[in-house]
Amino acid sequence: MLAFVVQNGKLREAHRAVPKLRPRWALIRVHYAGICNTDVEILRGYHQFRGVPGHEFIGEVVGVAGVSGSVKQRWLGKRVVGEINVSCSAYNHRPVCAFCRRGLKTHCARRTVLGIVAHDGAFAEYLALPLENLHVIPANVSDEKAVFAEPLAAACRILEQIPIRRFPSAAVLGDGKLAQLIARVLKAAGTEITLYGKHEAKLKLARMGGVQTKKVRGNASDLKRLKENHRLVVESTGSPTGLILAQQMTEPRGTLILKSTFQGAAPVETWPIVVKEITVVGSRCGPFAKAIVLLRSGKIDPTPLVTRTFPLHEASEAIHYAQQPKVMKVLLRNEEYPAKS
Amino acid sequence: MLAFVVQNGKLREAHRAVPKLRPRWALIRVHYAGICNTDVEILRGYHQFRGVPGHEFIGEVVGVAGVSGSVKQRWLGKRVVGEINVSCSAYNHRPVCAFCRRGLKTHCARRTVLGIVAHDGAFAEYLALPLENLHVIPANVSDEKAVFAEPLAAACRILEQIPIRRFPSAAVLGDGKLAQLIARVLKAAGTEITLYGKHEAKLKLARMGGVQTKKVRGNASDLKRLKENHRLVVESTGSPTGLILAQQMTEPRGTLILKSTFQGAAPVETWPIVVKEITVVGSRCGPFAKAIVLLRSGKIDPTPLVTRTFPLHEASEAIHYAQQPKVMKVLLRNEEYPAKS
Repeated sequence: MLAFVVQNGKLREAHRAVPKLRPRWALIRVHYAGICNTDVEILRGYHQFRGVPGHEFIGEVVGVAGVSGSVKQRWLGKRVVGEINVSCSAYNHRPVCAFCRRGLKTHCARRTVLGIVAHDGAFAEYLALPLENLHVIPANVSDEKAVFAEPLAAACRILEQIPIRRFPSAAVLGDGKLAQLIARVLKAAGTEITLYGKHEAKLKLARMGGVQTKKVRGNASDLKRLKENHRLVVESTGSPTGLILAQQMTEPRGTLILKSTFQGAAPVETWPIVVKEITVVGSRCGPFAKAIVLLRSGKIDPTPLVTRTFPLHEASEAIHYAQQPKVMKVLLRNEEYPAKS
Repeated sequence: MLAFVVQNGKLREAHRAVPKLRPRWALIRVHYAGICNTDVEILRGYHQFRGVPGHEFIGEVVGVAGVSGSVKQRWLGKRVVGEINVSCSAYNHRPVCAFCRRGLKTHCARRTVLGIVAHDGAFAEYLALPLENLHVIPANVSDEKAVFAEPLAAACRILEQIPIRRFPSAAVLGDGKLAQLIARVLKAAGTEITLYGKHEAKLKLARMGGVQTKKVRGNASDLKRLKENHRLVVESTGSPTGLILAQQMTEPRGTLILKSTFQGAAPVETWPIVVKEITVVGSRCGPFAKAIVLLRSGKIDPTPLVTRTFPLHEASEAIHYAQQPKVMKVLLRNEEYPAKS
């Protein structure tokens, strides 16, 4: 099959065997894959990942291993998205690790992560995931929407971590793809959002999603000027300096959600966290079921965030294009997947 | 009166008028003052403080302003310790700030802080504080114990911020004064503590307080080696590198309490906070009442932490001495305060 692998900071076309399946795993033919900032970080060396990146996808189950006919029939042909952390049970590790025992599968000590840690991902014609990771997509949710399930679930994770109803308003720092989804999710939960970003075109996109915006430059003068106090701040700039601005904008006893993952260290003054007694909450993968409900209900339509769709065989160009300043979500479309028309 | 002020990174002897009192403020003759790392940071420029430092003290009320005779009599001659944040109400600001309105006086937007922000402190013969900040010390608690009320309250703050009973064990990073008090407070709350520090003599002191210890060097080799996973980690090293080690030692979904305040920025990789979904809780000033209960009950005896007591007029030498590696708590004793014997 056609696949793309990380090599010397680039995506290189490769031809790989279709993944072999373990018992209770499914083979999925990828329809669309989304390019995420984490994929760009992976090219820069994040996690020293060497395989096929890509962890946002929608696809179709074309094979299932080690289950009886009726279970197989329940899955075959279904359109699915998939949770990206593959835990002890899926590899039949016994005993399971302490985190799986506590039900914290996304923190499994032995996990692989689709397209990120020791598990080939979605920038390929096919991928493999355990059945327990899959979620069927309702018929009224298009592929172009469903491919956002993973980042939308990550945005929804915040709702599991804090009692959002206690925050009538919040600031979201960043105007990128994840920040935009977070702003929409928190707004759908009833919180008034102000999104702070650098790029007018991206801010406009947020306003079209019903979110207030403020333009910032993210430089030293902003740090002097922006004395805004928010009880809830979500840092999703993807930039090392985002945390500095975020902790400045968080009011005493406030909550700061950290969403950005990037390679390398940033010089951070930590005393404001102590003096203001800020609670900083790291936030990663979230509930797919909630994300699918938001997509199905139409409360969130992520498709305006798509800047461009490339055919899979142009994945190298696509990830290069995805790093241009004004670009939002870039999708890869598997040409093997027949067009609807 | 004799006082010491910050000048060019040193404590300089000065002669100052006894502080004037606002209504419902008390004049306190200092018995003992404690030297804290924050005082050392203040010499290095923290908060650009220019007055009399010192925020840990035990003293005696020798004057009260603007209250009737019976209230006055209730306070005069009492041995007291004092909360260091002086909020809107004590300055008669109207309306009070948004934080005072919510009862968060330690975060008052207009606060002064004894010996730290715009308020002369305890490295002097006398200081002034509002009556609402004072706590009377029971007769069975000696001055040498009571002078620890402020840092002990700061250690007790953790008990207000997290449900400590859900943490059967915890790690305390740092073997300095505050770390030692934190370890004792959490242990008294029923949590099994391991204290990580660099200095054998300080670790021994912790063990004498019933706390397990592990010696670390806090360098790159520790960062490779120490894969210990704690559900609760308290960072109280006072060092910029402490946070890096602390987040490495915090298990996924764990809690990291930040206690260190120091001047300047440290290079911090924040992605482990996100990937492990750690909750980082900044923690500052705490409940004096709880600290006094611990001192009165004898559950915590901080006096073994005192390395040396200097007379007040040797405060410059004392703060120099306090910065030597093996030194723990250094006290200043006001010679005006008559010896008990």
